[in-house]
Amino acid sequence: MKALVITKPGGPEVLEMQDRPVPQPGPGEIRVKVHASALNRADLLQRRGAYPAPPGAPADIPGLEYAGEVDAVGEGAGLWAVGNRVMGIVGGGGHAEYVVVHEREGIRIPQNLEWEDAAAIPEAFLTAYDSLFRQLDLTVGERVLILAVGSGVGTAAVQLASAAGATVIGTSRTAAKLKRAAELGLETGVDTSREDLAEAVNQATYGSGVHAVLDLVGGKLLEASLRVVALRGRVVVVGTTGGSKVEVDLGLLLRRRIHLFGTVLRSRPLEEKIALAREFSNAVIPLISAGRIKPVVDSVFRFDQVAKAQARMEANESFGKIVLTW
Amino acid sequence: MKALVITKPGGPEVLEMQDRPVPQPGPGEIRVKVHASALNRADLLQRRGAYPAPPGAPADIPGLEYAGEVDAVGEGAGLWAVGNRVMGIVGGGGHAEYVVVHEREGIRIPQNLEWEDAAAIPEAFLTAYDSLFRQLDLTVGERVLILAVGSGVGTAAVQLASAAGATVIGTSRTAAKLKRAAELGLETGVDTSREDLAEAVNQATYGSGVHAVLDLVGGKLLEASLRVVALRGRVVVVGTTGGSKVEVDLGLLLRRRIHLFGTVLRSRPLEEKIALAREFSNAVIPLISAGRIKPVVDSVFRFDQVAKAQARMEANESFGKIVLTW
Repeated sequence: MKALVITKPGGPEVLEMQDRPVPQPGPGEIRVKVHASALNRADLLQRRGAYPAPPGAPADIPGLEYAGEVDAVGEGAGLWAVGNRVMGIVGGGGHAEYVVVHEREGIRIPQNLEWEDAAAIPEAFLTAYDSLFRQLDLTVGERVLILAVGSGVGTAAVQLASAAGATVIGTSRTAAKLKRAAELGLETGVDTSREDLAEAVNQATYGSGVHAVLDLVGGKLLEASLRVVALRGRVVVVGTTGGSKVEVDLGLLLRRRIHLFGTVLRSRPLEEKIALAREFSNAVIPLISAGRIKPVVDSVFRFDQVAKAQARMEANESFGKIVLTW
Repeated sequence: MKALVITKPGGPEVLEMQDRPVPQPGPGEIRVKVHASALNRADLLQRRGAYPAPPGAPADIPGLEYAGEVDAVGEGAGLWAVGNRVMGIVGGGGHAEYVVVHEREGIRIPQNLEWEDAAAIPEAFLTAYDSLFRQLDLTVGERVLILAVGSGVGTAAVQLASAAGATVIGTSRTAAKLKRAAELGLETGVDTSREDLAEAVNQATYGSGVHAVLDLVGGKLLEASLRVVALRGRVVVVGTTGGSKVEVDLGLLLRRRIHLFGTVLRSRPLEEKIALAREFSNAVIPLISAGRIKPVVDSVFRFDQVAKAQARMEANESFGKIVLTW
């Protein structure tokens, strides 16, 4: 099979299309013929040598998600038939023609989605769903601040939080992205290239602050957001592109009884990934089938144009997911 | 009634014994004749003008806890009879001859305790119980790190965590305090005046780290403790005498999925204080009655010696609670 291979740590030029053996499904597993995948920040970090794949995943093939059809079924696996449309996350290896996963990790692709749309779902929507509802315990009527809204996870989180009856405040450094996020359910957009975050949130909430923060950025933006968290508010950090060393005022955490925590999907053990995939299938897939929630595709590239696709992500130009197809 | 009054912000010399009107119990309340109380760091902060009393508590009388007997019963209150022995926490005003509390906030004093022992219980044991079991969700078999063990809360937490089947690691800057804490159930003592915290914890846990941290100190000690928290570990901050501005590595929070949060009892609303008092009565009072858990009294001072008592706390010489009696 064809696979994108990281030949050594470096820039986009180190990626090479190579031939690799087609993986065989073991007991309880399925093999998926990948029609489309998508890009994640982790792919760029891994290419630079800064984010090694977890044990069990191919060490030199990036790609954390896939959409395709079941191609072979391992011994004892009984949930899927060859030809079924399936999507999901993997610890690595998604940027190849085939992946092998445990059958219970797979998520059925709703009929109304093309391959390119389906490939824009797994990482963005599973991360957003897990962060908002399993980590932050976001509930109807709460105010949630999303830092930042333009990414794949951001566009997914705005829709999910809005669908759950939360009031969504979000940031971006690009006015045009805030405008597009408004169509997804963003109530208040804060342009952090020219507005002070704490001030803007205080104004939007009449000084009451937010109950929850989904932070995809880290750094100074996180520090500022801690100042507008309401009593017993929760803050989850999922990304640190804006900086990972931050100064935290413990006095603030004490007085407001704030919960600050981090989470990550990639390194979780199989049983947790299965549990998340099953919950997600129950909670979110019906909303996608009904068209109430939509994958946001920024652009589609062929796999042999991956260098261009990665350059687009690194330039922070994208809104939603950058998809790759064979 | 006599009451210790903070006449203006300052050192121990600003405390003055004054006459104040005896407070009247309202509907659902009881009045308690205070036989003993105890000191807390908050009393020192409040004396210096750095920690104002919450709304509803006397603004200028310190004291966060009491042990005494029911002296009068308000309209509709039916749980207590005059003469019953009762203890508990208050938002302020505990350093006076009488306090008024909601009857459901009161905790029955076990028969085996003298007033001085009972007064050493409320703040220390309620804080330790709440932090360990309602915030950290500590459970049997887990390893917990307590920073630091010599304080009132520390000596309570060592006993409670040990009674719950956790393995207790704790710090102090005084070898003699670690030795005394060992008698309370401390398994591994780390002398932070000469040992590196992270190194010592790694050695004691064979590199596996701790599941939970109860931090009564903050500052550099908290920063060091974050490095030895195991996957999905929890860290609760209850005190910041060691410094409230800390540098946190978000990458660490993400990879290990660490929960860092603060909590405080004093400013909680009535319904939360009642809920805690009732849970504590069910969970901990039987252990105290049975003698399996013991209040740790460092020293006893008369109320008119409060300046001496506060000086002892400020010198960090105490082990356990500094008690005040009339």
